Amino acid sequence: MSKISDSTIQSVLGALSFNEDGLIPAIAQQHDTGEVLMMAWMNQEAVETTLREGRGVYWSRSRDALWRKGESSGQMQTLIELRWDCDNDTILLVVDQAGVACHTGRRNCFFNAVRDDDVQEIAEIVTDPDDLYGA
Amino acid sequence: MSKISDSTIQSVLGALSFNEDGLIPAIAQQHDTGEVLMMAWMNQEAVETTLREGRGVYWSRSRDALWRKGESSGQMQTLIELRWDCDNDTILLVVDQAGVACHTGRRNCFFNAVRDDDVQEIAEIVTDPDDLYGA
Repeated sequence: MSKISDSTIQSVLGALSFNEDGLIPAIAQQHDTGEVLMMAWMNQEAVETTLREGRGVYWSRSRDALWRKGESSGQMQTLIELRWDCDNDTILLVVDQAGVACHTGRRNCFFNAVRDDDVQEIAEIVTDPDDLYGA
Repeated sequence: MSKISDSTIQSVLGALSFNEDGLIPAIAQQHDTGEVLMMAWMNQEAVETTLREGRGVYWSRSRDALWRKGESSGQMQTLIELRWDCDNDTILLVVDQAGVACHTGRRNCFFNAVRDDDVQEIAEIVTDPDDLYGA
């Protein structure tokens, strides 16, 4: 993605509605296959950093810190396009995901499903999590 | 989708993590194109009703009421599969969307985008909202 100016970043931040915790949900989607990879949260700094650095950057609610996706695992998300919805309260991040999006080592996080009147895991682990984060 | 038994519904409700307001975010995705249509919220009743009725049913935070998607507009979502993520705190609803998903009359809700260092609307209105909800 080409460089984003300060004024465009301010337009985006001004348009978005953050919740009472200063956060907005962000859905990450693989740009070419349409696969929904994950959902995480962003604060203003995460949105700004995502646009400035051209990669998926979130706010980790568990670590209470900015989270550059892939900083530990190497599985970064190159930003293709940042979009948001009619209510200005959800982001859709169109990305190119390196490797796997899920910390379990699956390509995407949505591997639990109701199938054949049962709860099933429908995706295989493709990368050992120990290889992503160290044993 | 085939009929879902009470025990499977209880397994799903037991697995899911609802937030302090009793809600969980749900992403709706068109099953064949992969298009991300919208994001809305579900409570336990919405999850159960979605599975029992085989259609997208949400919790309207503005109306504080169960919301069968399409009940006013006719633009209902036939459920193909209900999935959820590794943290059990986000649902991915794979659906077949009748007509348009967005109340603005666009096919999906994510029509605001950062493009060419500007904020642009990237989707056309395909159905007049007056035709969806009455003038």
